[in-house]
Amino acid sequence: MKSDATRTLLVTRSDLRCIVEELGADALMDELIRALTEALRTFDGELTEVRKRDGFLLDHPRQPGCLEWMPVMQRGSAVTVKMVSYSPFNPEAHGLPTIIATNSLYDVNTGHLIALMDGVFATALRTGAASAVATRALASPDSRVIGLVGCGAQAVTQLHAIRRVFPINEVLAYDTNPEAQQSLARRTAFLGLDVKVVTLAELEERSDIICTATSVAVGGGPVISGKALKPHVHINAVGSDLPGKTELPKELLERSLVCPDFLVQCLVEGECQQIRPEQVGPDLTTLVKNPDVYESWRQRSTVFDSTGYALEDQVVTALMLRHAERLGLGTSVGLETVGGDALDPYALLREPDAAPVRDLRRATGS
Amino acid sequence: MKSDATRTLLVTRSDLRCIVEELGADALMDELIRALTEALRTFDGELTEVRKRDGFLLDHPRQPGCLEWMPVMQRGSAVTVKMVSYSPFNPEAHGLPTIIATNSLYDVNTGHLIALMDGVFATALRTGAASAVATRALASPDSRVIGLVGCGAQAVTQLHAIRRVFPINEVLAYDTNPEAQQSLARRTAFLGLDVKVVTLAELEERSDIICTATSVAVGGGPVISGKALKPHVHINAVGSDLPGKTELPKELLERSLVCPDFLVQCLVEGECQQIRPEQVGPDLTTLVKNPDVYESWRQRSTVFDSTGYALEDQVVTALMLRHAERLGLGTSVGLETVGGDALDPYALLREPDAAPVRDLRRATGS
Repeated sequence: MKSDATRTLLVTRSDLRCIVEELGADALMDELIRALTEALRTFDGELTEVRKRDGFLLDHPRQPGCLEWMPVMQRGSAVTVKMVSYSPFNPEAHGLPTIIATNSLYDVNTGHLIALMDGVFATALRTGAASAVATRALASPDSRVIGLVGCGAQAVTQLHAIRRVFPINEVLAYDTNPEAQQSLARRTAFLGLDVKVVTLAELEERSDIICTATSVAVGGGPVISGKALKPHVHINAVGSDLPGKTELPKELLERSLVCPDFLVQCLVEGECQQIRPEQVGPDLTTLVKNPDVYESWRQRSTVFDSTGYALEDQVVTALMLRHAERLGLGTSVGLETVGGDALDPYALLREPDAAPVRDLRRATGS
Repeated sequence: MKSDATRTLLVTRSDLRCIVEELGADALMDELIRALTEALRTFDGELTEVRKRDGFLLDHPRQPGCLEWMPVMQRGSAVTVKMVSYSPFNPEAHGLPTIIATNSLYDVNTGHLIALMDGVFATALRTGAASAVATRALASPDSRVIGLVGCGAQAVTQLHAIRRVFPINEVLAYDTNPEAQQSLARRTAFLGLDVKVVTLAELEERSDIICTATSVAVGGGPVISGKALKPHVHINAVGSDLPGKTELPKELLERSLVCPDFLVQCLVEGECQQIRPEQVGPDLTTLVKNPDVYESWRQRSTVFDSTGYALEDQVVTALMLRHAERLGLGTSVGLETVGGDALDPYALLREPDAAPVRDLRRATGS
């Protein structure tokens, strides 16, 4: 993205739709899973500085939410910052997704905002891809039955991503909200899978792989009993995003290999809150760098503690921007007051031709 | 800004130009000084949560810079986040401002990005306004001579803002960069003031008010000697934005009333780094809430330690957005993947009519 340092590329939901249409959802997910695996395999803490997310607690009427920033810097290149909010009653109260986000890319040489893109779709996509990476490393290769606890937006991409790396033939769906539980089959129809609404007990007994992606309240967990699980079960615990919000029983964590996406963050707001640091297993990066070391765990109980890792946002942002550039998508906007006399804040505001207001145009014709 | 929760308002440099053209730069600055004064006077820490900024150090070739986030939440209403970068060699190396920024406004009820605006002009404006507020409280009412140490972009709005609250009749300009020093008169010609290029010694001896706004290197300060200053001098030290970067001699701070904009931040990256916490005076909020208490200091040496306060960004963002709305400025963009089935990340990407890519349009005709 070595473009005009006076303009910012906006990549909107419409642009993302064009990318999905052109590539196909499966190819896009496959590419993201590959890119994330590669980013983890080659991760070097000297070159990439990932920050634990921080933010504000939002005083929603019934249940707290949060608005957070997730920054990551690739030295000598770019900073990616995702601003992400969690508002558990958004679907019901506003018809909006629980998770709303935007991803920004900054040039480290100048501080210029290179691009801003939607982060709602990108977050669902990369959270799915992260579970696919962890599941491929830790689940039994014979896994065929997946159980989804929480059937909201994230469940769709969890299923899609894991379906890309396992020959899933049965989907068990459970949600405390009957509408969400019932509508999952429709929302995932594009996968051509058999989606069954079941009791939590049946889901726990029969699943080889489980994804928990719920809006359980702080202190309201666990969302599964942990009893009668298959001995080789692999669980992707996706819902943790606040201190005190956890989805799994402590006993289950204690008998499983628990793999955090980002240890320092998981200890504060992930399932790892419930156990002692010495009970935590390898993080996702270690797992991907050393797949053979943990292979024997595929026949035992494993947990991916997925709080959401800024590196995943860096990867999905870069991937989407590459496709936007390739396809001539995105809108180039003269946002920042730059490009005039660098020493005069008023210069551009006096020069009528510097950045006409009607200059909003597509970056390249298409 | 209770608009469509599926669209984001972009307020670009062109929109800001329209606002400046319509209002006039003086009226805009006056309004901002009033709004900031009022925000400080009525500040309530229970209602507004201001975060100390945090960020990445940028490894620029000759001198480090930074990319930082400055978040502030008005409970029940909105979160304002400024992303701001400091790249001291931007003007020379890239023809870009030293400080590049964008300001974002989020709805705390949903997490939706309501608006995104340029922060370059907004930062220069609000940093000027903050100095005007502090200077009005702490400088001698008879001040007529202002000295500018560092003649870059910030000097322009420092002078403009302080000129709005003091009958300045002489401007003394000093910069280690002769070009910047010489060109300040041209860049501030709109103020109709007598701008003289002087030695640092003359500036220090003759100024009633001094603004330091330099790109001095970490450890490279102080930028003034502090000798032979007027006994009633008021100094706005604007340049501090990194640990180790300071502009004033420690002895000067020790004999002056030092007023930080945001204490916890100034202790880390402001002039307050150089002194003990008990040597620090009232912060800007305390000063504005209790002007009479500090009135006697107008005849003594005072320092405003201006690191940049997120509350200032909240005020300038709200003010600019109000004017954009009033004038029908800004561009409404369907950025976030919202507005379809809240439980289906792929829904909008399958519906061709949901958010056409060519739908970028002005929020209201104008």
